[in-house]
Amino acid sequence: MPIITLTTDFGTRDWFVGSMKGVILGINPQAQIVDITHEAPPGDVRTGAFALAASYRCFPRLTVHVAVVDPGVGSQRAAIAVRTADYFFVGPDNGVLSLALAREKVLEIRRIENAALLRQPVSETFHGRDVFAPVAARLTQGVLLDSLGAKLDGYARLDWSQPRVVGGALRGEIIYIDRFGNCITNLGAPGSSAGKVRVAGTVEARVRQFYQQGALGEPIAVVGSTGLLEIAINGGNAAQSLGLSVGDVVEFG
Amino acid sequence: MPIITLTTDFGTRDWFVGSMKGVILGINPQAQIVDITHEAPPGDVRTGAFALAASYRCFPRLTVHVAVVDPGVGSQRAAIAVRTADYFFVGPDNGVLSLALAREKVLEIRRIENAALLRQPVSETFHGRDVFAPVAARLTQGVLLDSLGAKLDGYARLDWSQPRVVGGALRGEIIYIDRFGNCITNLGAPGSSAGKVRVAGTVEARVRQFYQQGALGEPIAVVGSTGLLEIAINGGNAAQSLGLSVGDVVEFG
Amino acid sequence: MPIITLTTDFGTRDWFVGSMKGVILGINPQAQIVDITHEAPPGDVRTGAFALAASYRCFPRLTVHVAVVDPGVGSQRAAIAVRTADYFFVGPDNGVLSLALAREKVLEIRRIENAALLRQPVSETFHGRDVFAPVAARLTQGVLLDSLGAKLDGYARLDWSQPRVVGGALRGEIIYIDRFGNCITNLGAPGSSAGKVRVAGTVEARVRQFYQQGALGEPIAVVGSTGLLEIAINGGNAAQSLGLSVGDVVEFG
Repeated sequence: MPIITLTTDFGTRDWFVGSMKGVILGINPQAQIVDITHEAPPGDVRTGAFALAASYRCFPRLTVHVAVVDPGVGSQRAAIAVRTADYFFVGPDNGVLSLALAREKVLEIRRIENAALLRQPVSETFHGRDVFAPVAARLTQGVLLDSLGAKLDGYARLDWSQPRVVGGALRGEIIYIDRFGNCITNLGAPGSSAGKVRVAGTVEARVRQFYQQGALGEPIAVVGSTGLLEIAINGGNAAQSLGLSVGDVVEFG
Repeated sequence: MPIITLTTDFGTRDWFVGSMKGVILGINPQAQIVDITHEAPPGDVRTGAFALAASYRCFPRLTVHVAVVDPGVGSQRAAIAVRTADYFFVGPDNGVLSLALAREKVLEIRRIENAALLRQPVSETFHGRDVFAPVAARLTQGVLLDSLGAKLDGYARLDWSQPRVVGGALRGEIIYIDRFGNCITNLGAPGSSAGKVRVAGTVEARVRQFYQQGALGEPIAVVGSTGLLEIAINGGNAAQSLGLSVGDVVEFG
Repeated sequence: MPIITLTTDFGTRDWFVGSMKGVILGINPQAQIVDITHEAPPGDVRTGAFALAASYRCFPRLTVHVAVVDPGVGSQRAAIAVRTADYFFVGPDNGVLSLALAREKVLEIRRIENAALLRQPVSETFHGRDVFAPVAARLTQGVLLDSLGAKLDGYARLDWSQPRVVGGALRGEIIYIDRFGNCITNLGAPGSSAGKVRVAGTVEARVRQFYQQGALGEPIAVVGSTGLLEIAINGGNAAQSLGLSVGDVVEFG
């Protein structure tokens, strides 16, 4: 059974996601559709890109990953489909796919232009339903990328800050705060658990292996499930308790 | 694979929707179940009706659409199943199905009375699980409507205000505000893009084709994905920024 | 088609639930995955246990129920899989499964230890993805419990207060408040509808059969869909209007 994942900012209180699923199942009733998230803040391409990149590798080969955080819907921004060594990706060419694509071996990028493959008439405000859903469904049926439209040489990327060494310490930042208040940084697993992590200039966090190693209220640094270092409080909400935000500086070493 | 959609006010933080799905799959394990929304405000039949009407046509023929916003559960209000030229609809006869049904060719309406087709014992407070879910599942198995109960001549309708011409202008109102703060009106696509739309007596919005045609903070009017005119702000939340609510008057021309 | 249910505190705004589903489908693409809830408050094992217990019986035999509210992830707390006469249960051995298991005929309990059946490398912070999802998927493929790990004699239970007779009245408490503000108690259906239910020392509620039997703003007591007495207000939110909380005393008779 073919799998299609959905990552959007459509929320779940309106009918937008259900509409996409109806279109998909109308084309391929066998599709297994999996929600990654629909709670990216409206228009927040970076959050969508991060959620997709953090999860797409959990899915089997040939899964079609659709990401629609699309403030430019209806404008001249391209709609693209991408084939990599293991997966397909479908979405607007605004960077929402880029964090995942940067980790993949990209084989082919096509602009989605073939009106015959879309839901007609195409709305100017809802390409999730009329463009991306039908293309994803057709990809699960074996439709080839070259039937979609013109070949592209690249895709839009987002500007993500990279960790760097400053004064002997590795300096990065908080890039995502999850439901539990854990603050995911762009630092990888530390080579040593001896040092402390300094956050936002004030907080010090010891490196621990799992959450319950932290004492009551103690900030700790744990390598989370994405392989990145995160600031957490055992049983608490680190972001709220420590007043941390995306962009706050994190230093180790 | 048969498809069943669910539109409710059950929310997602309790187990209500999961229970309905368990009952459906216990009867027909092949069913593909799609959530339209479960976030209709508690008891808000109109919002449920609008969400269903805005999305049901995205699904393939013979889909069974279940809508349960049901403040009268356990009372004498009828439970009904409806067959139209293309779909089945199941829910309480309180108007939640009516906005969709008004657009369909209705072929048969039955009151759900046959206890043998329900989950027993039937709770007085959760017909979603005990009445509507099992009936929907059985419809996907080919059970005929005449096995459900007495034939009905009509269904309960909701009172929706219609646009009308006042002083040379078309006057309607805001009928739904979506996650993005876009204010959906009951006005269709304007014949011309020359005029301005006046909202709530104070706001003026130019007609545009897509969101990014609006300048920063500028109210615009766009034909949305349901075919209705909506008031929006590019990259912003029109309802919040402009202080708009359902029921606010909208005029064009 | 095999069914797997998920009950967690992962929320829906991150990618955690989607990741679990990807792992499951990578092992068994035929699995039907049903969300019970992902909105248990972070680390709230009791809420997760209650949601699972309130819904698992709606699912057909051999369903695999996965519950992951797991503040001790990465610590020495056991991960277990349980076979009962009708179902499988998978989760941390911290009580989240216990309310359901107490109602089942337990046939076999195994500690999950066999690294070959897990997603490698196993994260110290996300056993939902790396331990519980793959084990659930393999159980739907017929993998036997004895391949998982050591046999256990029991499972961790939670301390739930039981109703008792005090001064001729049955005294219990509010144990769960649902989306509608209905306050579910640990009292079963009353033998008589003649008496009144007293809540939190001040509120009096008459026993009614369904919500709409209550007058505007009137507190009523209704046997809800779980078979337990709940305090409700017709068309209103009893918890908010009456200021009720989990743990408030409820007396009948």
